[in-house]
Amino acid sequence: MPLVRISLRRGKPAAYRQAIADGVYHAMVETFGVPENDRFIVFHQHDADEFSTSPDYLGIRRTDDLVLIQLTVSNTRAVDQKQRLYRGIVDQLTRAPGLRPEDVFINLIEVLPENWSFGMGEAQYVK
Amino acid sequence: MPLVRISLRRGKPAAYRQAIADGVYHAMVETFGVPENDRFIVFHQHDADEFSTSPDYLGIRRTDDLVLIQLTVSNTRAVDQKQRLYRGIVDQLTRAPGLRPEDVFINLIEVLPENWSFGMGEAQYVK
Amino acid sequence: MPLVRISLRRGKPAAYRQAIADGVYHAMVETFGVPENDRFIVFHQHDADEFSTSPDYLGIRRTDDLVLIQLTVSNTRAVDQKQRLYRGIVDQLTRAPGLRPEDVFINLIEVLPENWSFGMGEAQYVK
Repeated sequence: MPLVRISLRRGKPAAYRQAIADGVYHAMVETFGVPENDRFIVFHQHDADEFSTSPDYLGIRRTDDLVLIQLTVSNTRAVDQKQRLYRGIVDQLTRAPGLRPEDVFINLIEVLPENWSFGMGEAQYVK
Repeated sequence: MPLVRISLRRGKPAAYRQAIADGVYHAMVETFGVPENDRFIVFHQHDADEFSTSPDYLGIRRTDDLVLIQLTVSNTRAVDQKQRLYRGIVDQLTRAPGLRPEDVFINLIEVLPENWSFGMGEAQYVK
Repeated sequence: MPLVRISLRRGKPAAYRQAIADGVYHAMVETFGVPENDRFIVFHQHDADEFSTSPDYLGIRRTDDLVLIQLTVSNTRAVDQKQRLYRGIVDQLTRAPGLRPEDVFINLIEVLPENWSFGMGEAQYVK
């Protein structure tokens, strides 16, 4: 059910974004109770003048490789599971495509389970 | 008040996106109590390597024509009205531009009515 | 902590978007209790056929210069602070880059403070 929107600077090769998508997906499955195959990830590439981000907020040194990962998810997880997700995504993305941990920004938007339709005009999570 | 963000693969003609915008708008007016003229819809076109989506999550067969429709709306509707919206959007989009029902993915983000300013720096929905 | 997503028509010079980012950032710091340096703003430029917006909803006359500003923020502010933010953004953007007040559309998505990771895989706002 997550709908994942990833913003980053334009110009990396396709395999780089593929590695990010794979890593986020695997972290969601392993740490966040997301079912296999529940994968809906889009990328937005931004030119420098479309990407205005802090190089050091909270003392974290960010580079132009910063990725902003915004996940819309159902509101069914506690704090500790969110923390596991954050760590899981960073573990994955430092391995491939080799991001710095400082360059991984994550935000969760939570919605009710009834707020999803995965096709056919049905609300599949409503019993 | 809905702010609608639609992600799809790059390359369809402009009239195709126009038909999607018209269909989503009409479904919102007919099923979701959205006022006439309350229409704020943007499209994001994605290359293949920017669009990583499941071809079969929940057994629904999706194609490259998949559209991801994310609507930010006020939190004033019950489940059954959301279900009518989902069906209404699919009814519209299967008619024009002729999407398959399997290729219509919908997600709602709900916010407080005070969370909107439609211009002039005013919160028009605050009494 | 705000993650700000700004949609506008394609084709303005870079300095124009820079002025919008600066103005939104300063309004957040001045009216919304956002810390200095907490700046994560991305722009999406849209062609005409990707931007389907009402020219007059609620009687507000909008032009092609309309900017749709969607801010994801922590859910820690009352109504009056949101109203100050709206006015603050419009004050800034009418000064530079010189937008009309009618062309500033704002929407807030609120999330829990635990829903942010600013890097390192940590949830910095969790005590």
